[in-house]
Amino acid sequence: MARNVLFLLGFLSLFFGLAVADWNILNQNRKTGLGISLKNYCEGWRINVELNNIRGFDVVPDECVEYIGKYMTSTQYKVDSERATEECSLYLSSCCALKGDGKDAWIFDIDDTLLSTVPYYKKHQYGGEKVDLGSLEGWMAESKAPALEHTLKLFNEIKGRGFQIFLISSRRENLRSATVDNLVKVGYHGWTGLKLRGPEDDWKTVQKYKAETRKLLVDEGYRIWGSVGDQWSSLEGNPSAKRTFKLPNSLYYVA
Amino acid sequence: MARNVLFLLGFLSLFFGLAVADWNILNQNRKTGLGISLKNYCEGWRINVELNNIRGFDVVPDECVEYIGKYMTSTQYKVDSERATEECSLYLSSCCALKGDGKDAWIFDIDDTLLSTVPYYKKHQYGGEKVDLGSLEGWMAESKAPALEHTLKLFNEIKGRGFQIFLISSRRENLRSATVDNLVKVGYHGWTGLKLRGPEDDWKTVQKYKAETRKLLVDEGYRIWGSVGDQWSSLEGNPSAKRTFKLPNSLYYVA
Repeated sequence: MARNVLFLLGFLSLFFGLAVADWNILNQNRKTGLGISLKNYCEGWRINVELNNIRGFDVVPDECVEYIGKYMTSTQYKVDSERATEECSLYLSSCCALKGDGKDAWIFDIDDTLLSTVPYYKKHQYGGEKVDLGSLEGWMAESKAPALEHTLKLFNEIKGRGFQIFLISSRRENLRSATVDNLVKVGYHGWTGLKLRGPEDDWKTVQKYKAETRKLLVDEGYRIWGSVGDQWSSLEGNPSAKRTFKLPNSLYYVA
Repeated sequence: MARNVLFLLGFLSLFFGLAVADWNILNQNRKTGLGISLKNYCEGWRINVELNNIRGFDVVPDECVEYIGKYMTSTQYKVDSERATEECSLYLSSCCALKGDGKDAWIFDIDDTLLSTVPYYKKHQYGGEKVDLGSLEGWMAESKAPALEHTLKLFNEIKGRGFQIFLISSRRENLRSATVDNLVKVGYHGWTGLKLRGPEDDWKTVQKYKAETRKLLVDEGYRIWGSVGDQWSSLEGNPSAKRTFKLPNSLYYVA
């Protein structure tokens, strides 16, 4: 019996020893062995998230939490986001022959598009910790998310041009009043519709839910000239907006 | 008469004076006034090109030529590209129940996907100079573009898994033999089809031409499991591949 246990222990230590060695080699190759720094590695991760090549991640890789946290609170993040909204303004200056019949529409996502969840993720390892929906919704219920200032400016420009603005969010219906409170408090008002997820949408991917919501708008005769979001799932799928604008965000992934 | 000319000159100098002042203020705000460095500005430009927010540019902005040149010849560019191909490998490991009937297809673009045009652009201001098609085609005709090593590895992996590989390029038919020479010389062989632009495709956007080519494949019964390219126009439009992978490239824009 004792010999069997010793054999098992030997086997296990060999197995884990090899596994650890393997992991070390991988890390060495990836991050130092080939002259690649941790910064290179994490920037490569981030850009491939933005390019929609890395999908379906649950958490930011542990070794990149610091890098991603730094980016998401940096001047560069602000510059990147602002440039996206500037390109949107440029498009608006010549894109759309509005009919003035109240059917010219524009779509915004909410989280990390109109409102920033960075303050929440700052307290939760910048995405390095698996999202606890209860805790996140608790924070959202407090209605204290700040506006993304450049998107607020864009929102007002779009409203001023006479578009009907629709907010389509993957937040759930139980957060409706907290969401409206939060939006109005930081300066957003005058939208035409606010779509949140009902129980019937729970089983769908967010991409499918959002595409179906756009379909309802198109069926009602709306012309969707543009859409702004920080996740590809807010923008892709049919029917799509005539043009889409993707804001940077590498804190989490929504399918 | 002389008074009229003087008045006109005065008006013109006032007009241009204001225009120049305006341009200076814009630049000041953008690049220094608000604490934004040139690096911030150019990185913001680059990421928004990758996000498909900035479209249709003819040249890399003059002030960012150095920054983009540095990136496109950097370790970071290699790391970013390699990570994209690694995600592709990851997808391949579980994506596709191949039928083995010779109809499982994979698509690659050529320039800056299989072959690098960076050596050409190195001599032409890294995209800061408007592309001269004659000069670019002259360079392509020399068949000396190097392989993107990580894509070559991926190409061989995909071939080894039994996919039929189709190369769909916006190069024109007159470059067929030079293109085949170049591809074979650097290690690519064993593709099933190579589609180049014929005279009938000249009036179309590249996106339309590539989507139509995919349509022909689908009509022939091919299942397109994946597609790799460095321009969104290689990947977007219907029918699309089941999954697409975007390599970084901010040297030029193809609509």
